[in-house]
Amino acid sequence: MIRRASASATRHGRWRNGNRTRHIAAMQDTRFEQQIRFIVEIDKLKNVLRRTLLTDGTRRENSAEHSWHLALMAVLLVEHADPGVDVRRVIEMLLVHDIVEIDAGDTFAYDVAANADRAARERAAADRLFSLLPPDQQHALRALWEEFEAGQTAESRYALALDRLQPLLQNVFAQGGAWRSHGVTREQILVRMQPVGDLSAELGAYVVRLIDEVWAAGYIRSIDDVR
Amino acid sequence: MIRRASASATRHGRWRNGNRTRHIAAMQDTRFEQQIRFIVEIDKLKNVLRRTLLTDGTRRENSAEHSWHLALMAVLLVEHADPGVDVRRVIEMLLVHDIVEIDAGDTFAYDVAANADRAARERAAADRLFSLLPPDQQHALRALWEEFEAGQTAESRYALALDRLQPLLQNVFAQGGAWRSHGVTREQILVRMQPVGDLSAELGAYVVRLIDEVWAAGYIRSIDDVR
Repeated sequence: MIRRASASATRHGRWRNGNRTRHIAAMQDTRFEQQIRFIVEIDKLKNVLRRTLLTDGTRRENSAEHSWHLALMAVLLVEHADPGVDVRRVIEMLLVHDIVEIDAGDTFAYDVAANADRAARERAAADRLFSLLPPDQQHALRALWEEFEAGQTAESRYALALDRLQPLLQNVFAQGGAWRSHGVTREQILVRMQPVGDLSAELGAYVVRLIDEVWAAGYIRSIDDVR
Repeated sequence: MIRRASASATRHGRWRNGNRTRHIAAMQDTRFEQQIRFIVEIDKLKNVLRRTLLTDGTRRENSAEHSWHLALMAVLLVEHADPGVDVRRVIEMLLVHDIVEIDAGDTFAYDVAANADRAARERAAADRLFSLLPPDQQHALRALWEEFEAGQTAESRYALALDRLQPLLQNVFAQGGAWRSHGVTREQILVRMQPVGDLSAELGAYVVRLIDEVWAAGYIRSIDDVR
């Protein structure tokens, strides 16, 4: 049951052999223990680091806390989504959308080479991770992830816009943050933020204004500056 | 707009005076910018550390990633909640339930002294933090937090049970984790886990079994051991 039983002394001396093995075998049989196994496995998402910094600049953000932030944004900004959007589905999608990174790692949006095989790596990760769950939940969570990736529904378009808006806010309020340290240009960011403008003209205009402020402050460069 | 503009040189030399001040003043006027202000503020929850360790034992968990974990657990374990429970409300409650810790800090469950003024500290935090939002959302999020704290509805009882179950799993799979390093006893943990058994006999029995396994492995002590 408990991982890393390792070299510690055990009270009755039976931990590392019979008791533990029997328990793990039993876990394959009950629906509840499959759920627990998945819940414990996804703890690893807290160790997947994104390029984005916290706004105080002290460290990189991880994908679990990023997902929390997005889910709460989905609650607050729903008036910018299509009328009638299913908010519960959006939130669940955002809670699940980065889980594949446990195996596939976070791929920096502006890294062209790493993005070439991203889809294949993430599909393999989805196969392994979601299959820990009982079949009905395996299919439900995988469907949420695939809907997010396809970006064709009102729910996934809202979720995608939030997934672009949140790191923008982090970078802007960390004085350029990862954009600055990785030399990302104003124009690359504008392309990346297109889903925000596609969702809402107000959000889109706000985003362009922030990017221009960060550029005016000298934290990022424009391709015109480089020439 | 951008915090910590500090000593950096700015492109047009106007960042730290007129432009920035005007923008912050303008933010008090629009609903959208109130929402963004709150969204940026809650980034700080990622820096609030709990006593609980990640299951790999490498570091303490923060309250933002903990909230993500709980929200996804609420999706997966709903069959253990009361029939007809409003899952969206539970998820939103869990996304919000620890935000007051940005000002009030995380209070270790087994620290009696620190828990004496916890309620007062958290109320003051709620006053400040939720008031950043437009009035309707301020009231909605505060109501979720107060419902969680009161623990009287089917939704809040489910949320509370998850908030007890998740650190138990973290501690069990980190070989006793924070329980072990803080000398928490088997009996203290059993009392703390009562809301899990109140919610579901199956979950409650599972939790007792895990606690007994951790005790049998020698990672925690019983008051009977101490005597």
